[in-house]
Amino acid sequence: MTVHLVGAGPGDPGLLTVRALDVLRRADVVIYDRLSQESLLDLAPPDADRIDVGKAPGHVRLSQEDINALLVERGRRGETVVRLKGGDPFVFARGGEEAAALAEAGVPFEVVPGITSAIAVPAYAGIPVTLRHSSTSVTIVTGHEDPAAGEEGSVDWSAVARVGGTIVILMGVARIGRIAEALMAGGRPPDTPVAAVQWGTRPEQRTVRATLATIGAAPLGTPSTIVVGDVAASDLAWFENRPLMGRRVVVTRAREQASEHHRQERKGAFHRPTLAAIQLT
Amino acid sequence: MTVHLVGAGPGDPGLLTVRALDVLRRADVVIYDRLSQESLLDLAPPDADRIDVGKAPGHVRLSQEDINALLVERGRRGETVVRLKGGDPFVFARGGEEAAALAEAGVPFEVVPGITSAIAVPAYAGIPVTLRHSSTSVTIVTGHEDPAAGEEGSVDWSAVARVGGTIVILMGVARIGRIAEALMAGGRPPDTPVAAVQWGTRPEQRTVRATLATIGAAPLGTPSTIVVGDVAASDLAWFENRPLMGRRVVVTRAREQASEHHRQERKGAFHRPTLAAIQLT
Repeated sequence: MTVHLVGAGPGDPGLLTVRALDVLRRADVVIYDRLSQESLLDLAPPDADRIDVGKAPGHVRLSQEDINALLVERGRRGETVVRLKGGDPFVFARGGEEAAALAEAGVPFEVVPGITSAIAVPAYAGIPVTLRHSSTSVTIVTGHEDPAAGEEGSVDWSAVARVGGTIVILMGVARIGRIAEALMAGGRPPDTPVAAVQWGTRPEQRTVRATLATIGAAPLGTPSTIVVGDVAASDLAWFENRPLMGRRVVVTRAREQASEHHRQERKGAFHRPTLAAIQLT
Repeated sequence: MTVHLVGAGPGDPGLLTVRALDVLRRADVVIYDRLSQESLLDLAPPDADRIDVGKAPGHVRLSQEDINALLVERGRRGETVVRLKGGDPFVFARGGEEAAALAEAGVPFEVVPGITSAIAVPAYAGIPVTLRHSSTSVTIVTGHEDPAAGEEGSVDWSAVARVGGTIVILMGVARIGRIAEALMAGGRPPDTPVAAVQWGTRPEQRTVRATLATIGAAPLGTPSTIVVGDVAASDLAWFENRPLMGRRVVVTRAREQASEHHRQERKGAFHRPTLAAIQLT
């Protein structure tokens, strides 16, 4: 009888919160986007409705307005509705718009915050987003602008550069070359460390290490969380250095030399005990 | 046989992750700071060691170097060590320093990210830290500088102001007046909304609403998470508007009128079902 706006976290099922697990298990309906862990849907009762409203590339499904209307409609039926989103529902996930629609319609809701990729994915790559003597702020920013906001969007990259702390860019792979140029134009040195972590917290996690000067030519894939700043040189490896786990790529040459860039890689698979933990009943 | 650097989240026990619950239940020793939910310690086995290394005001206990040494020493014993911190271990919590000490000593460790107050506490006050058309970035910054960095510390508040997105200030109550002045000097309008959320996600949660011009005179208490920006005007109330739950204070007058400022308050207590969820066995 409440709509729960639930963050599913970045991918590792162990990063689901206890509250999220609780409401998923009681759900009458789960309304979800593309998730990095579809297995979370198995936590709902077998007879719960599962509605995919995600926007897979080339397959635009429901508009945001339609999703809002669906949440209101199912909420009004008196059902336990779980609106499941990757990461945190209030970090670049339009959870604010959905909460506003529910509030306006008078449908009871609650927010169940999730572990955000912006902080946890760097952590899984051995990067603390803050460090006492080198970074006293972290700016989380989207590299995927609202098209309505214009070609380069409304992010003032020069201002972001001048803050001087850690910058975490979500959804920025497609534009990282231009973003890096803008950050250098804003005063960040070309040798500023950059780490791009693809499929963070998942067994396939893969980290590319570069600098602002070289990241534009680096072999990145989506989805990646991109960290810029001194902390991005940290490599307190614990997840990727497990036997047969993850893969690391270091890009050491400038754009012109990208075709021959130096790589250090390792690769494999690793068994995490966290799924067992989720089976707690 | 591993040291787990675990985030306990902001206070609501339902925001503990499944992985954190799992390692707490298997802990041989829990090494903790002051926590906003001491009841989390009950999740460890009855015979587990519980070591408080927190720094209560006026009672400095262990130095960071001593804590690092303790983690290394207990880790080397082959025990399951849980280092429990409020929020996230890598967001202004010195988890990076502890991970570095463990890595240097060759002691296996893992990071268990926690829900950070910087995002979840605003959410519990009905404030999404990002909104599609009004905030495309969020800067998380500490208002409690490393004293070694000088009187006003190393945060360039003027640069933070110019980014234009949401600003979340942790540990900033004592300096909020000077911070607000610096943000206005950096170009943020005096009527920029500010919300200060004390004891966020706990039954005692209390939100003070003000502006950059008035926040310096507002009746704030610690710990508070302070949100600055257009989103701080959001009041998608779901937690504080439950019957007999929380308290809201609106400050509408400038500093000069603070002694007679207008308040709207309500107060009470509320039963959350999340502790029951944690009792899953």
